[in-house]
This record gives sequence, C-alpha cells and structure tokens, in this order.
Amino acid sequence: MAKKKKDIRREFIIEEAAKLFKEKGFGGTSMRDLAEQVGMDAATMYHYISSKDEILKTICFDIAHTYITQLTEIEQAQQPITQKLKALIGLHIRLMTTKGPAVSVANNDWKFLSPEPLQEFKNLRSRYEKKLASFIEQGVQAGELQEVNASVALFTLLSAVRWVELWWKPNRGVSPEELENTILTILFNGLEKEKP
Amino acid sequence: MAKKKKDIRREFIIEEAAKLFKEKGFGGTSMRDLAEQVGMDAATMYHYISSKDEILKTICFDIAHTYITQLTEIEQAQQPITQKLKALIGLHIRLMTTKGPAVSVANNDWKFLSPEPLQEFKNLRSRYEKKLASFIEQGVQAGELQEVNASVALFTLLSAVRWVELWWKPNRGVSPEELENTILTILFNGLEKEKP
Repeated sequence: MAKKKKDIRREFIIEEAAKLFKEKGFGGTSMRDLAEQVGMDAATMYHYISSKDEILKTICFDIAHTYITQLTEIEQAQQPITQKLKALIGLHIRLMTTKGPAVSVANNDWKFLSPEPLQEFKNLRSRYEKKLASFIEQGVQAGELQEVNASVALFTLLSAVRWVELWWKPNRGVSPEELENTILTILFNGLEKEKP
Repeated sequence: MAKKKKDIRREFIIEEAAKLFKEKGFGGTSMRDLAEQVGMDAATMYHYISSKDEILKTICFDIAHTYITQLTEIEQAQQPITQKLKALIGLHIRLMTTKGPAVSVANNDWKFLSPEPLQEFKNLRSRYEKKLASFIEQGVQAGELQEVNASVALFTLLSAVRWVELWWKPNRGVSPEELENTILTILFNGLEKEKP
C-alpha cells in the first residue's frame, strides 16, 4: 500500500515534469521549477525521483515501450496490412490526445538523454521505423497499397500526425475520434473524393 | 555591375548562414562562425550584411514571400481546388529540395525574429493558412474533397511534408519528382490502393 502511494506520487511528478519540459524545454526547466510545480519541497521530491535525467529517461522509454508493445501485438494479428498501419498511426494520434506532453518530450527532448539511454532510444526508434517500413513494403507487394517508396511513405505518415500535439486541445471543437478518423481518411483514402 | 557583384556576395553569405543556422541553431551560430564559413574577415562581411537579425529576417521573409506569391498566382488560376492545393503542397516539397536550409530556418528559427518582423511574419503565416483552409472548405462544398474539418486537413497536409527538409538529400535514391509525386499521391489519393 505504501509502495503504491509512492508510485502514484512519482507518476504525478513525472507528468508535471513532462508539461514543464514541453513548455520551457528540457534545458530551460530546473528541478526547482519542478518542485514548485508539484508543490513539494525539493527534499520531499527527491524521495520520489533522483534527477532530471531519470525523469527524461522514464518519459522517453514509457512512450517508446507503448509503441513497441502495440507493434508486437499488431504484428501477430491476422489482418490486412492497411488495418495494421491504421492501428499504429491511430495509436500515435491517440497518444497525443491522451499524453500530449509526454509525446512531445519523447519527440523533441530525447536528444538530451545521456549517452547510453540515448543509444538505446535511437535503436528502439530505428527498429520501430524499419518494422513499419517493412509493413508498407508488404502492403505494396500484396497489392493493398499504392506502389510507393517505403521510406517516403513511412515518413509522410509519421510526419502527418506530428502537429497534433501542438494543436489539439479538448476545446478545439474536434473530438479525438473525429481527429483520428479524419487524419486516417486523408492518409489512407486521400483528401480527394473518389470519382463516382 | 558593382551592385550586382555585391548582391551575389550578399546572397552567398545568407545561404551559408542558413546552413549554419540549420546545423547549429540560430542561437548557437555566431557572426564569427559565419565569417569563417564564408572565408571573409568580419569587416569585409559587414560590408554585405549588418547583423544576424538582418540575415534571419531576410531568410524568413524570402521564404514567406515565395509562398505568398505562388498563392496569389494560384488563387487567380481557373482550375479545380484539388489542383490548387496540389500545386501549393508541391511548392512546399520543392522548396525543401532546392532551398532546404532556408526552409528549415523559416520553419524553426522564425521565433527569434525581433518583435516587429516577428509579428509581421506571424500575420503572413496566419493569412496563408487561412487561405489554404478556405480552399479546403471550398473543395468540400464543391464535392471535390472528402467532408473533413478544414483545420485538421490543413495541418495534416502541411505537417505531412515537414520531414522532407530533414531527410531528403540528392543521394537518397529518390528524385525530387518521385518524392513530390509520392507524397501528393498519398495525401490526395490515399496510401491504400483503390478497390478494383
């Protein structure tokens, strides 16, 4: 029980840290800023987390592992490649509407990781991108997808959703479902209406 | 003639500055770095440009005016909305393969403009985005485009091409034409192949 309370506090500190990193940058945020944000004195806060580096590492790998877990599940599912890709890109969009600050940190501040986790993070990302590119290649070969260069298609898909973390807010008048449906429609069916 | 030589030198300095800003960031680049890059002593260089701020302003507004000029021409053309949007997004892609560093600076370093040009730059960008959003709305109303939220479609299109300045190089094995055709195909016709 005591353990659980400690975990909850730790998660709270990490979530607040992600908001600060997103707003002021990793370099621009001090542990003092964070202590103020979470309303604890520094000594209390250090009971839950040891350093800014540890927080950054936790945020980046939490997001990376969410992607990898989903990828592993989807890989094993029996469904068309298009459905697999849609599920993965949908996850990117949903993560930004539910964990916007953490995604922003994993997208932008990963380069401030210390050397060892930095290399590990880059490896994970690279493996993830290669797997997605191979999905695209399979889809092209199976005649499901247009005949595109897999790298160009991959980066177009991933880049096309990146703006969401900067723009989407609950009060934008676009629900998370509409957002996801619209983006997936554009990317997989095209913005242009099919000719009748 | 003397004037022309001066202009050419000035353009060369600005192009080299864009490369340095892209590589080291606007804040991380000194006028001393720039003088070294262009192989001039500082006094000679200041004959052509007065400050880092002036260079940044020139780069940002050169790119902004390229977009605006194209937009104005396209607005007056008699063609379907889809063609207008494709031409504009095509321009974004082509600018990144021909003027990658300048586009990168206009995308990322505009926030370091001094207050007056900063406001002007934001106004230009906002007017450009509103005009593109209104194209999308017209396209939806005309039945040319899918029934999408114009803001979501707009930012998906603009974001989908942003990776190009980071990735594309002449030796990537993808020609500028293939790059443009592939991205426009995905965005307007969809990655999924039409059902027969």
